Amino acid sequence: MTDILTTATETPANAADEGGRIVLGPNQYGKAEVRVVKVTRDTDRHEIEDLNVTSQLRGDFAGAHLAGDNSHVVATDTQKNTIFAFARDGVGSPEAFLLRLAEHFTGSFDWVTGGRWLAESYAWERILAHGQEHDHAFVRSGQEVRTAAVVADGDDRHVIAGLKDLVVLKTTQSGFVGYPKDRYTTLQETTDRILATSVATRWRYRPGAEPDYNATYERVKAILLETFTEHYSAALQTTLFEMGQAVLERHPEIAEIRFSMPNKHHFVVDLAPFGLDNPNEVFYASDRSYGLIEATVTREGLEPAPGAWESVGAFC
Amino acid sequence: MTDILTTATETPANAADEGGRIVLGPNQYGKAEVRVVKVTRDTDRHEIEDLNVTSQLRGDFAGAHLAGDNSHVVATDTQKNTIFAFARDGVGSPEAFLLRLAEHFTGSFDWVTGGRWLAESYAWERILAHGQEHDHAFVRSGQEVRTAAVVADGDDRHVIAGLKDLVVLKTTQSGFVGYPKDRYTTLQETTDRILATSVATRWRYRPGAEPDYNATYERVKAILLETFTEHYSAALQTTLFEMGQAVLERHPEIAEIRFSMPNKHHFVVDLAPFGLDNPNEVFYASDRSYGLIEATVTREGLEPAPGAWESVGAFC
Amino acid sequence: MTDILTTATETPANAADEGGRIVLGPNQYGKAEVRVVKVTRDTDRHEIEDLNVTSQLRGDFAGAHLAGDNSHVVATDTQKNTIFAFARDGVGSPEAFLLRLAEHFTGSFDWVTGGRWLAESYAWERILAHGQEHDHAFVRSGQEVRTAAVVADGDDRHVIAGLKDLVVLKTTQSGFVGYPKDRYTTLQETTDRILATSVATRWRYRPGAEPDYNATYERVKAILLETFTEHYSAALQTTLFEMGQAVLERHPEIAEIRFSMPNKHHFVVDLAPFGLDNPNEVFYASDRSYGLIEATVTREGLEPAPGAWESVGAFC
Amino acid sequence: MTDILTTATETPANAADEGGRIVLGPNQYGKAEVRVVKVTRDTDRHEIEDLNVTSQLRGDFAGAHLAGDNSHVVATDTQKNTIFAFARDGVGSPEAFLLRLAEHFTGSFDWVTGGRWLAESYAWERILAHGQEHDHAFVRSGQEVRTAAVVADGDDRHVIAGLKDLVVLKTTQSGFVGYPKDRYTTLQETTDRILATSVATRWRYRPGAEPDYNATYERVKAILLETFTEHYSAALQTTLFEMGQAVLERHPEIAEIRFSMPNKHHFVVDLAPFGLDNPNEVFYASDRSYGLIEATVTREGLEPAPGAWESVGAFC
Repeated sequence: MTDILTTATETPANAADEGGRIVLGPNQYGKAEVRVVKVTRDTDRHEIEDLNVTSQLRGDFAGAHLAGDNSHVVATDTQKNTIFAFARDGVGSPEAFLLRLAEHFTGSFDWVTGGRWLAESYAWERILAHGQEHDHAFVRSGQEVRTAAVVADGDDRHVIAGLKDLVVLKTTQSGFVGYPKDRYTTLQETTDRILATSVATRWRYRPGAEPDYNATYERVKAILLETFTEHYSAALQTTLFEMGQAVLERHPEIAEIRFSMPNKHHFVVDLAPFGLDNPNEVFYASDRSYGLIEATVTREGLEPAPGAWESVGAFC
Repeated sequence: MTDILTTATETPANAADEGGRIVLGPNQYGKAEVRVVKVTRDTDRHEIEDLNVTSQLRGDFAGAHLAGDNSHVVATDTQKNTIFAFARDGVGSPEAFLLRLAEHFTGSFDWVTGGRWLAESYAWERILAHGQEHDHAFVRSGQEVRTAAVVADGDDRHVIAGLKDLVVLKTTQSGFVGYPKDRYTTLQETTDRILATSVATRWRYRPGAEPDYNATYERVKAILLETFTEHYSAALQTTLFEMGQAVLERHPEIAEIRFSMPNKHHFVVDLAPFGLDNPNEVFYASDRSYGLIEATVTREGLEPAPGAWESVGAFC
Repeated sequence: MTDILTTATETPANAADEGGRIVLGPNQYGKAEVRVVKVTRDTDRHEIEDLNVTSQLRGDFAGAHLAGDNSHVVATDTQKNTIFAFARDGVGSPEAFLLRLAEHFTGSFDWVTGGRWLAESYAWERILAHGQEHDHAFVRSGQEVRTAAVVADGDDRHVIAGLKDLVVLKTTQSGFVGYPKDRYTTLQETTDRILATSVATRWRYRPGAEPDYNATYERVKAILLETFTEHYSAALQTTLFEMGQAVLERHPEIAEIRFSMPNKHHFVVDLAPFGLDNPNEVFYASDRSYGLIEATVTREGLEPAPGAWESVGAFC
Repeated sequence: MTDILTTATETPANAADEGGRIVLGPNQYGKAEVRVVKVTRDTDRHEIEDLNVTSQLRGDFAGAHLAGDNSHVVATDTQKNTIFAFARDGVGSPEAFLLRLAEHFTGSFDWVTGGRWLAESYAWERILAHGQEHDHAFVRSGQEVRTAAVVADGDDRHVIAGLKDLVVLKTTQSGFVGYPKDRYTTLQETTDRILATSVATRWRYRPGAEPDYNATYERVKAILLETFTEHYSAALQTTLFEMGQAVLERHPEIAEIRFSMPNKHHFVVDLAPFGLDNPNEVFYASDRSYGLIEATVTREGLEPAPGAWESVGAFC
């Protein structure tokens, strides 16, 4: 956490009954969820970029917290305006856009030593009209939400790409056996079940990597989907690791990848009371509770980046 | 509303200080949101049907309301079990599945004279792995939710199909001018704006129609999307009517179609304070408030079906 | 539904292959979810009113739908502005505020013959500081959302008040027995279970009634809560009817009341596999599926008001 | 992050084109959102505890990820069962309940070296019937959600309490001036505005502290509310720090406290176009974007606990 705390707060505060003075610790602030839509219309074939951007600054903000002195507080409204103004020059990729914001804020204000910039982006497909992709009419593709994060800490820049809400399901080739049984175990073993999850993943690019963020995103998504289909799944953990391993093998510019994957349970309904069999054909899709499998696939000897991950959540 | 009230409640109740006896009026009950997933696996190429089903019965339920007599109350748990049991024989289409449920409940219990059965269904696409559609691995397509409703009232059967959450957007070829100006009007006219909406629609089949529900659904969705792209839109109302008209023209088996369409405002951001122009390129996507346009496209001389529509909402 | 269709659309439209000309049916449009907060600060003890208002107009809007003629379309932006402007004079009660909007729009534009105005309102409590209610600091009370609706149809005015999301639970004095058993019934009878629901209700005032809307709201809410606690509940239907009956008995100005109440199931967990008993102490709170009980409590001989109810949903 | 990675994975994996072997990094798994309701009914005056519990284990789970070997995978279903079984003996406080779960799992399975246990709890108030608190009928109090977290890492136990969704608002005594102005600044200074936020906070108890968790929760909540009301707020940052400081001053058993507080903007509506003034009486409550202020109030010289915070999110 210490890399968020970029300013040791020296201002005296009241002493507590026990322990040291009460001081300001790690902090960040800014504007969240700025919904910016950029249309590129230099030809008749328009392009659309649809983002939800969050900007939060870190640095010396002790004055505002301790003394009501706002002289360092770049207004969250100003941060919002900056996002819209920067969009005038185009987005390009969410990662590149966030990097521009990070450079701007850390470069423009001495006391801003870092920060966190996040984006969700929403995909639009061209509507097919009379068999042709339309020039300026789109339908929102709801398959997944793309995510991006840039964390600045002094001169360091961490770039983390990802996605969430990618819901996948296998109707067979999944099972769960060989787990420990104790007093509280009632689960029956099975070698044929539905495996379903909603993939949330984030991958961190190596420092200095300059990938084509959009193209890499599409390739990583394809690898994730393809790997999900392959092999018998002995546990969601195995499938998760294989998905991450496949990404790292093919993308040396990616340092590590993390997943948070709910096991969306589909229970076989017992139809025997109604005189019916049920050979894994009728399932009840349960909302809660759900399994929750979270893990990192990384590379041996890799320098860890705790400051990057704490900024986006331990896993995703 | 009277067609919901299938039983005149004759049981005396307390007299109120003014007015008539207090009696039971229209009512319905059942099990909501039964999440049933049906896998068809008679070949290696599995099929998946994913539904959220609601079943509610109407008829003579005065005993339960007025006297704690449950002898007519087909348990909501039993309704849920029936849904799962019926899925064992397959779903086919949401509409056909709901019709089977309606026949079952109205046919099995003398006092059940009607009811309402609803379904949402969620589309899954086969994952493309190595360029091929996978046999048993799927990814959820989030583009829209398909809806279906069957309303039974005595011997009548109303079938209403629909969809919701189909988000579409045009980056140009939309405007809004010529509206009345009063003391409270500040809106500026424009002949070039973003038009965006989330289409919710329901169409009612003519009584006795026996369409291919799945094929018709796909064709109606295609017509809606295609029509959205066409023509300059003078108002969302115009676009709505054209969409409905196109559906009715090509589908005589559809009696009428209703829409509830929010005008999802995308406001041009004023970048002038930052020394930038903004020729309709940078927009702020606003959540609330939003326009809400609701209308019916129907056929002259059509016999109205208020009992059908009140069961699903006046519009959608 | 016919009372929504206030204008017979005479404009010719394309003829369909079968059936009559395609015409415009019932329609309404306006601005939804205008979040207006009114602070009354004429003394140091401030008051706060927090509303989410929707305004939709009905009347002759055929031009906009059929011919792109907006000369009748009071802009939804203008409707929003009007809401804010009217709040300058205070809210008073949600119902009174909506009635003022209805008079304004139907009185200002010849072609506006009716409409629907809705409000949700959110309660704030004064923060207790040093044992005293604070003058201008509030905490949001999340217990329930108050609702209001005004429907205008020519000279008629329907006023419907209500609430939703009032979650109540009894740990005993509830059961369910005596229901019919068929092939699909597996539910066991019980005379001691948890009964829990989230009350959504709307009550319609008699035409011409001029109640104190705020005081009546508080009294009705108290009656609903109190009645829920009383008597052994033989079914949620019985409890619902008793709640409605108690309201109607004590409030002659209320014509009828409707409820939509999910049966929020709390299942007793079987702890026997773990060597433990469970005398109705440990429950699993299930999200879906859920029972859904909907009914009207009304007065004999009451003139029905289908146009009012279709505007807010058949039940709530 | 390294304290989540309790097992160095020695199993060889495929070498990537660049960098080291691909290995398993930090991971955790379990069952999320187990909705357990405990009724204590040893007297006629029942008590209710309503929790949403998540259990995730950390330790040596390399076999499952790398080799499909589930011999270490305590089934998530078993974790769920354990939660229900433990509730048979009562909950007491969310924190105490989670500590029991932590001891059980780390004590029962050699390879489980730690984990994360989370709870949300929902408050119920007794219904007032005829002026008396009812024995067994309750209404859900929606004011805030109480949160709890226990993180086990070897012999260490971190206990973090908190709350979220506590929405507070001041109608005056708040302003924002003196902030830096740059090219992108358009915000006007004000010394009288609405200040509103939804408080999310978590406080970490000192290691070894054995507070009365329920009583402390109530006191901390009261301090937060009371402090919010006091003083002119020069910025939300100042108010946040004062709230945290007040908690730490009065609760030496609390090591540090963190906040994530959105600035829920209430914009003064410009009514001048309608010929009306608006002396801070009519506001538009905006959903998005919003300010987001996050900070830690801590004690000088305190040993940091990054492993605790990364388990619940950097702030809340």
